[in-house]
Amino acid sequence: MSANQKKPLILITNDDGVEAKGLKALIEAVRPLGKVLVVAPAEPQSGMSHAITVKVPLRISKITHEKNLTIYKCYGTPVDCVKMAFNHLLKEKPDILLSGINHGSNASTSVFYSGTMGAALEGCINDIPSIGYSLLNLDHDADFTAAKYYADIITRKVLKNGLPKTICLNVNIPDMEQAKIAGIKICRQNKGYWREEFDKRIDPAGKHYYWLTGYFHNTEPEATDTDEWALSNQYVSIVPLHTDLTCRDTMKTLNSWNFE
Amino acid sequence: MSANQKKPLILITNDDGVEAKGLKALIEAVRPLGKVLVVAPAEPQSGMSHAITVKVPLRISKITHEKNLTIYKCYGTPVDCVKMAFNHLLKEKPDILLSGINHGSNASTSVFYSGTMGAALEGCINDIPSIGYSLLNLDHDADFTAAKYYADIITRKVLKNGLPKTICLNVNIPDMEQAKIAGIKICRQNKGYWREEFDKRIDPAGKHYYWLTGYFHNTEPEATDTDEWALSNQYVSIVPLHTDLTCRDTMKTLNSWNFE
Repeated sequence: MSANQKKPLILITNDDGVEAKGLKALIEAVRPLGKVLVVAPAEPQSGMSHAITVKVPLRISKITHEKNLTIYKCYGTPVDCVKMAFNHLLKEKPDILLSGINHGSNASTSVFYSGTMGAALEGCINDIPSIGYSLLNLDHDADFTAAKYYADIITRKVLKNGLPKTICLNVNIPDMEQAKIAGIKICRQNKGYWREEFDKRIDPAGKHYYWLTGYFHNTEPEATDTDEWALSNQYVSIVPLHTDLTCRDTMKTLNSWNFE
Repeated sequence: MSANQKKPLILITNDDGVEAKGLKALIEAVRPLGKVLVVAPAEPQSGMSHAITVKVPLRISKITHEKNLTIYKCYGTPVDCVKMAFNHLLKEKPDILLSGINHGSNASTSVFYSGTMGAALEGCINDIPSIGYSLLNLDHDADFTAAKYYADIITRKVLKNGLPKTICLNVNIPDMEQAKIAGIKICRQNKGYWREEFDKRIDPAGKHYYWLTGYFHNTEPEATDTDEWALSNQYVSIVPLHTDLTCRDTMKTLNSWNFE
C-alpha cells in the first residue's frame, strides 16, 4: 500500500457477543488490512436473525480505543449494531462489513435464523460489501486458526474486487486443520429445514416449559453444488446472497389467477 | 363443500401478539373456510424477523377452545410459534399458514425485519403454503374491513390452487376504504433501505440511551412493477417470495476470482 492510499475502514460485528473468541479471531485476521471499527452485541445474540430492537432503547459504550482499532459494545441485536455504526457512529460508509466468526454453521437455510448473517444482510441492504464468516464448531473455545486464514484471503479479495450491489457472502469453514481443507468452493444455498424436538420439562412450580432443540434435515442430499456438499467434502463454502426474495416464476403463475 | 371433504386446517400467527386487533380480524376473515388453530405470541414481537428463542425456554398455554377454533399463546417469537405448532401441537401438517394481519407495512425490504413475514417464511421453509398479511396502518385500533375482504379472497385462492414448493406470499393492503382499492397487483419486492435516526436521550442517572427511529428510502422510485408502486397507486400488492437467497449471477463472477 502506498503512503497516499487511505487505509480501508473495516466494520466488524457478530452475534456471539463482544467477548466471543470468534470475534477476536476475526479482528486479528483482518487488523493488518485497515482501520477496524467493532460494534458488537454486549450479550450473545444467537438465533436473533435480522431482529431490531423497538420496544426498549439501545445503549452503547466504547470499550477499546487503540491505533486503528476501536471497539464498542451495544446492548442490542447484531442488526442494531450495524445500524448504530452506519447511522450514528460513522461519518462515512465503511469499505467493508464483516460479521463473525460465528461459533457454528450458518450454511443452507440456517441463514434465516442467524444473527451473524442478519448483520451481513443488513450491510448489503445498505450497499456495503459484506461477508458473514462461520466455523462449523459451536464450542466457545473452538480453534479458529484455519478460519482466520480464510477470512484473511477472502476479505482481501473482496476489498480488492468489491462485490456487486446488494450482494453479501455467506462463508462457512469446516472444522479441521488448515492443511486438510481442500480449498474454496462457490456454492448455492442448500435446501432443507430444521426439524425441532421440543424438550418438555416441569419447573419447580409444576408448570411445563420447553427447550427448543432440533437437527437439520437436508432435502437434497444428492446435490453436489451446494454449501452443505462443499462443507461435507472439506471445502470452505461461499454462497453469494442477495436481498431480493421475489420469485419471478411465481409472479407469472399468480398473474394467471383470477382473483376477483 | 361436500360432507366428504375434510375442512382445511388453517394455522394462524402474527407478530403484534395474541391480543392484536389484526389477529382477530384475520381469524374472523378465514374462520368460515376451515378449522383454525392460532398460536400467537403472548407479547408484541414487532421487528423480531426470523428470530428463535434459544437462551430461555418457551412456555405455551391454551386460551380458547371452541368449535373449529383453538387459540394458544406462546411466550416466544412468531417463528417459535410456528415451530411449536408444526413440531409439538400438530400431528399433521396444516393446509395453510397465515400470519397477520400486521399493523403496518411489510413491503419492500421491511420483509427482513418483520416478525409477520418471518413466520410466513418459516412456513414456506417447511413447505406449507404461507401468506403474510399487512395493513398500511400502525394504529392499534386500525380499520381492518378492507384487509379482511382481501384476506378472504386471497386465502381461498391459495387453498384452491396451492402454491409452488417453498414459496410464500407477502400481501400488503393500502389503508383505505374497500371501495377505493383499485384491485390486486402481483409485484416484485421494491429495492430500498431504512435510514435510521437515533433519538438520543439522557436517563435519570445521566447516561445516554437511544431510540431506534427512521424512514424508508426508496432507491427506485421510478419503478412501476414493485410493491411500493402498487401500494402508492391504491392496489393490494402480492409479492411471491422464495427462501433461496443465492445470487446465481454472482456465483459466475466469484468463480472467475483466483482465491488461492
